[in-house]
Amino acid sequence: MWDVAEELKAMLVFAEHRYYGESLPFGDNSFKDSRHLNFLTSEQALADFAELIKHLKRTIPGAENQPVIAIGGSYGGMLAAWFRMKYPHMVVGALAASAPIWQFEDLVPCGVFMKIVTTDFRKSGPHCSESIHRSWDAINRLSNTGSGLQWLTGALHLCSPLTSQDIQHLKDWISETWVNLAMVDYPYASNFLQPLPAWPIKVVCQYLKNPNVSDSLLLQNIFQALNVYYNYSGQVKCLNISETATSSLGTLGWSYQACTEVVMPFCTNGVDDMFEPHSWNLKELSDDCFQQWGVRPRPSWITTMYGGKNISSHTNIVFSNGELDPWSGGGVTKDITDTLVAVTISEGAHHLDLRTKNALDPMSVLLARSLEVRHMKNWIRDFYDSAGKQH
Amino acid sequence: MWDVAEELKAMLVFAEHRYYGESLPFGDNSFKDSRHLNFLTSEQALADFAELIKHLKRTIPGAENQPVIAIGGSYGGMLAAWFRMKYPHMVVGALAASAPIWQFEDLVPCGVFMKIVTTDFRKSGPHCSESIHRSWDAINRLSNTGSGLQWLTGALHLCSPLTSQDIQHLKDWISETWVNLAMVDYPYASNFLQPLPAWPIKVVCQYLKNPNVSDSLLLQNIFQALNVYYNYSGQVKCLNISETATSSLGTLGWSYQACTEVVMPFCTNGVDDMFEPHSWNLKELSDDCFQQWGVRPRPSWITTMYGGKNISSHTNIVFSNGELDPWSGGGVTKDITDTLVAVTISEGAHHLDLRTKNALDPMSVLLARSLEVRHMKNWIRDFYDSAGKQH
Repeated sequence: MWDVAEELKAMLVFAEHRYYGESLPFGDNSFKDSRHLNFLTSEQALADFAELIKHLKRTIPGAENQPVIAIGGSYGGMLAAWFRMKYPHMVVGALAASAPIWQFEDLVPCGVFMKIVTTDFRKSGPHCSESIHRSWDAINRLSNTGSGLQWLTGALHLCSPLTSQDIQHLKDWISETWVNLAMVDYPYASNFLQPLPAWPIKVVCQYLKNPNVSDSLLLQNIFQALNVYYNYSGQVKCLNISETATSSLGTLGWSYQACTEVVMPFCTNGVDDMFEPHSWNLKELSDDCFQQWGVRPRPSWITTMYGGKNISSHTNIVFSNGELDPWSGGGVTKDITDTLVAVTISEGAHHLDLRTKNALDPMSVLLARSLEVRHMKNWIRDFYDSAGKQH
Repeated sequence: MWDVAEELKAMLVFAEHRYYGESLPFGDNSFKDSRHLNFLTSEQALADFAELIKHLKRTIPGAENQPVIAIGGSYGGMLAAWFRMKYPHMVVGALAASAPIWQFEDLVPCGVFMKIVTTDFRKSGPHCSESIHRSWDAINRLSNTGSGLQWLTGALHLCSPLTSQDIQHLKDWISETWVNLAMVDYPYASNFLQPLPAWPIKVVCQYLKNPNVSDSLLLQNIFQALNVYYNYSGQVKCLNISETATSSLGTLGWSYQACTEVVMPFCTNGVDDMFEPHSWNLKELSDDCFQQWGVRPRPSWITTMYGGKNISSHTNIVFSNGELDPWSGGGVTKDITDTLVAVTISEGAHHLDLRTKNALDPMSVLLARSLEVRHMKNWIRDFYDSAGKQH
């Protein structure tokens, strides 16, 4: 974005979403009382952006009659797309990078996400996804006995001793690690969720070449693989299964949103993917949400509000997706109309296109960025054309 | 609408706006506590309509894949237009009849509304608007003395004796009567706000032919004119200056909305119109609102949310306006694009086109209705065309 801003002589504005970072409407009490959380919705966030743009145009000399483009990645990409849909008078277009706007209700199969994670591992090294696939039963067997649990705690270098109650959580934590690796499988060393080497899944898969070993050897290999993600710096003394990403992503706010509007069905079947089978269970989510926040999710609301797949009347949105990114499964990966276009980055993980340029950038992301800029220039040109006609 | 529904083999659904009629979210307490009123917004009403349409499609056999058209008049017309703007995936188009979507901020001159009222009276009889114009000073002079107040009470057949504190209110009540007459100046006897004869302003103006008479004679004539509006049935014993329309329009809800989102600037200057000069006073409104509801208006919000005059990216909305209707001043009376079109009814008052057909309908409204139906048929045809392409 910095590179493109310079090219387009644009101002970059990073708007912080309410209830994240320092934007806490009720200060330290924002998450303490569910009454204070009623204002945490995507609609309210979009309204904030509308007010912010108005404010900036009113107060920054020369900004008044300038075109604005919404840009975002991931949830921010959904917001960028939705903002163009709901406030087309405010932005001339939107770049929605890795925005899974269709990861709702039954708009895409619930298994597509984990299937893409699996494909990433399958393609990153021989027998890699197979090793992971086999690891779940190995964990189940090892955790059957007290000595097995003790051994596992040591083999995985865990900070706290495992009990049999922890096993599902352990497996969830490991699964989430593979998911995160799929999201950040970038072509160069980076530090988005964790400091990581280039093509981290390839590095991970070097430890997972042999699925047909004993349970204990397999789990020792799994540890080496996990250690790439959690300890690339080499400074970490033990692995903590209650943490997966850096804490700055605002897990509290997201947990509430996932319990209200942002209800994304996920599932696995252990056949098309390398995970244990898990069906999507709305009731369980609903009960958990009620216990944690006193609210129950409204799984249809996002589709009702933002149109689901029926969005062809909108214009000027570029949806970009990396083929390595599991979120691309819920994204727009085919053109809808001439001005609702899909850009695919074959070697891209999660919103690689939004990252600053790098000597190791694959051709596919260079092409994507240049396409995106071309669309932006078209939107801006059309804006000035129609502004000219009015005068 | 009934006529057209039959022609299009359509189902008619009348959705009641929350906080009006029987749709009270907190029952009898809905208006008793300002906390309960936070949910009275146009956005929430639109969301209700979205949920309602989904519910009807889900539950009525055969409805699932049918196209829907939003239709409304006045505020309902604004909602119809806004619904198509915000939920284009839900309705193939909207007929926004007499919808003053631009009666906000400075999108139109604040005096345009009363100027149109004045034109209606000027054109409905010789010296009619002149007589009304002169009446305000006559009232001011007569109300200077106790005996004058007593005389006025009798001459206007008021239910309660006037005091000098009532005079502004009396003039406001009379002004609102002329406004209401302009809204319902229909070509046949009708009963929208009050039971009235055909072309009621013409009837009223028969009593207001001579502005150059004494104050007392002028006010006696004004009474005859008011009596057309308030006592066409002949059953009314006295005129009550605390009532102007029938009470069924939900004045409480509207008062709250006018104090929050629906902030419409009105003004008069006594030169372009027949009223006493009144500038638009946001501060006064704000203080009144704070006293009545504990809230202050956000005069820019409707424009921020719904785009003001910058709505050309939307499609499939017909804005119809009657030239006699004062609300046409804040309406869309020129085509914006090929699919955002204006229909003008030269002999129409407030949403005459939505009323059932009548032998006395002027040609202009017959033409308007046939244009509207043609647009509806186009929207429906396009809907089926693109549905066909998807299969």
